[in-house]
Amino acid sequence: MTYKLTYFNFAGLGEPIRYLLSYLDIDFEDNRIDYEKWPSIKHTIPYGKVPILEIDGKVLNQSLAICRYLAKKANLAGSDDWESLLIDIAVDNFNDFAQNIKAYWFDTNEESKAAKYVTLVNETIPYYMEKFENIVAENNGYFVNGKLSWADLFIVSVMDFLIHKSNIDLLKDHPNLQGLREKVLAVPKIKSWVEKHQ
Amino acid sequence: MTYKLTYFNFAGLGEPIRYLLSYLDIDFEDNRIDYEKWPSIKHTIPYGKVPILEIDGKVLNQSLAICRYLAKKANLAGSDDWESLLIDIAVDNFNDFAQNIKAYWFDTNEESKAAKYVTLVNETIPYYMEKFENIVAENNGYFVNGKLSWADLFIVSVMDFLIHKSNIDLLKDHPNLQGLREKVLAVPKIKSWVEKHQ
Repeated sequence: MTYKLTYFNFAGLGEPIRYLLSYLDIDFEDNRIDYEKWPSIKHTIPYGKVPILEIDGKVLNQSLAICRYLAKKANLAGSDDWESLLIDIAVDNFNDFAQNIKAYWFDTNEESKAAKYVTLVNETIPYYMEKFENIVAENNGYFVNGKLSWADLFIVSVMDFLIHKSNIDLLKDHPNLQGLREKVLAVPKIKSWVEKHQ
Repeated sequence: MTYKLTYFNFAGLGEPIRYLLSYLDIDFEDNRIDYEKWPSIKHTIPYGKVPILEIDGKVLNQSLAICRYLAKKANLAGSDDWESLLIDIAVDNFNDFAQNIKAYWFDTNEESKAAKYVTLVNETIPYYMEKFENIVAENNGYFVNGKLSWADLFIVSVMDFLIHKSNIDLLKDHPNLQGLREKVLAVPKIKSWVEKHQ
């Protein structure tokens, strides 16, 4: 089978897919679009959004759906329906949090952007990060049931990107999340992927 | 087992869960919060968002994750991983579309709200609705593989709510989507649920 991932030349929503493909030891074409060329490419992409993954030429969009599919192949999507549910909930809650940071990034109005930053730093980030820290503390160092799942890979990958782009140290005073990050980045296949692409 | 759904007294993101619980013939407490009382309740809800579903007292949030879990019990979540993937993609694409309409509703600035309306009616709605119409045409009257899945239940339920709230007839000139809506609303358990709660 052939796998071709099309995304920009940064981590973002492409990186969790790259993590999962690497974890699965799947050879894939890592097609990275120049951000400047995006306007001329956008109309050729279904729904005009990346990442897309082509499997044997079949074009798939929606990064969470793609991650969930790959995670099933990697046995990282839960051992029963209830565990899969808890993983999906963790991912969607983290994604809600990430949306807040993205709404700040993409705000082009300086005034409302500044207001969003204040709310982010004083309310949204402490609110969510404390919850995530507690979940990992209660689940023996992972997001769900004390074992590695695609929620951990997804969240660590996107969290690193959020930290990098926002310059806010989300992990400060959150030892359990720091520990989870170290564990995910120490998974051999993830480690070698990250080392090759930093 | 006891099921308690907490949401507002309207369709919104609660209705797909009500559809699935009805489809499964599960007796559930349909706890509807007065919108005016929400500010005093919000802090008692995990992540401050509804719907939440309590199963035997275990509190679950994230409507898509909950729908997917219930859909598995109803055999509406795909017969293999690939079909499940296509269902997830359909739901997430529809959800992206719905976000555009919600961004318009929730815009409190009259000027930017009016601009959003123009883009919605002239660009976003035709763009997405044509794609959805074609998908249903190509899949023998359903979103995925010519058979009923939770993508159909979710999309019909949320589409009806969007039409109701926006007063824009999204289904105009889309006979395949109209046909899908009729089929979903004719499913006996959905039909009797809707008849009881209109």
